[in-house]
Amino acid sequence: MEEKEISQAVIGRLPRYFRYLGELRDESVERISSQELSEFMHVTASQIRQDFNNFGGFGQQGYGYNVEYLYDEIGKILGLDKQHNFIIVGAGNLGRALGNYLNFERRGFIFKGIFDKDETLVGQSVRGVRIMNMDELDSFVRENGIDIAVLTLPKTSAADIADRLVENGVRAIWNFAHVDLNVPEGVQVENVHLSDSLMKLSYNINRYMKENDK
Amino acid sequence: MEEKEISQAVIGRLPRYFRYLGELRDESVERISSQELSEFMHVTASQIRQDFNNFGGFGQQGYGYNVEYLYDEIGKILGLDKQHNFIIVGAGNLGRALGNYLNFERRGFIFKGIFDKDETLVGQSVRGVRIMNMDELDSFVRENGIDIAVLTLPKTSAADIADRLVENGVRAIWNFAHVDLNVPEGVQVENVHLSDSLMKLSYNINRYMKENDK
Repeated sequence: MEEKEISQAVIGRLPRYFRYLGELRDESVERISSQELSEFMHVTASQIRQDFNNFGGFGQQGYGYNVEYLYDEIGKILGLDKQHNFIIVGAGNLGRALGNYLNFERRGFIFKGIFDKDETLVGQSVRGVRIMNMDELDSFVRENGIDIAVLTLPKTSAADIADRLVENGVRAIWNFAHVDLNVPEGVQVENVHLSDSLMKLSYNINRYMKENDK
Repeated sequence: MEEKEISQAVIGRLPRYFRYLGELRDESVERISSQELSEFMHVTASQIRQDFNNFGGFGQQGYGYNVEYLYDEIGKILGLDKQHNFIIVGAGNLGRALGNYLNFERRGFIFKGIFDKDETLVGQSVRGVRIMNMDELDSFVRENGIDIAVLTLPKTSAADIADRLVENGVRAIWNFAHVDLNVPEGVQVENVHLSDSLMKLSYNINRYMKENDK
């Protein structure tokens, strides 16, 4: 498989395929044509075929795709057949919401620890996981094979904490802090800038209003 | 201004410019060249000039940009000079986290109401806003000029609730439910599919590992 040449645009569409195929699988659908999948997902059949061709095609044309097989293969491409241990740094509402989200576990993301500098939160638990003090962070990361850190803390401390995490072996950061992180090569960052998303929504509301005033 | 032809890629970058310009403004920086802004934001100066040219350029080359002016202008383009009233449907951890997020208010997004079908939550409050029963949703939306609804509820009920909201006048949905919504033309949807984002991270971890095993 020549994965190196696959664009981030294609990668960005894989989770959505995975989600829809999971629904089909849950409904016991065994086979689906690219045309049916196209109608179900509101993308063109040619887009689907092009995307899948990046990974060898997954099945014969005319005969349709085997849903279970396709679901599993896309899951493997996404690395969901492997276990990844994650911690959450920042036990505010957002951090706790993510800790409580069971679906991550189903996809192989195991919630191992949660940290906060607020002493009043330390000792409480989120889905059975005790909120720990920031002093315990470095050793915990080293000793528990933590791959992924979720940052749900204020932007002022995010960069320093990210550095500490990377030094202790974290290879990926899921960043909810409103700041862009500079990390060494080989460390993956995926940003969820909620304010940016809301501003895009705001732009689209206003553009629509302007266009329809004309 | 010819806004119609501006691509969503450019729009997607505007909130980031806005965020960085806000930081510069907070640090009382008055003027900045595209070269300095480029180094600060880790994008090329030519990208910045191209992006800004979509909106008339914002200032003379060689002389640099006026930070305050540029911040305000981009804010206006994003519609942040207008007030938008929003409600949250789903008062779980994520819904409460978003309700507690003060920065939205600073950007003109006013938190007006929060709803849940869980009777044990109804009557509690989130930042002074009482959690209401789902029966109150339709009339509340109509009577309080609600533009934006934030959906932080399970995917099974998201589509029905979205229909109800749109019928009662909501023009934009910020959707955190793990489902793609079908809404009438003119209703804006911005999806935040957290699982999709985590899967992208997972893909990038695995790709990096494979490449470095070779």
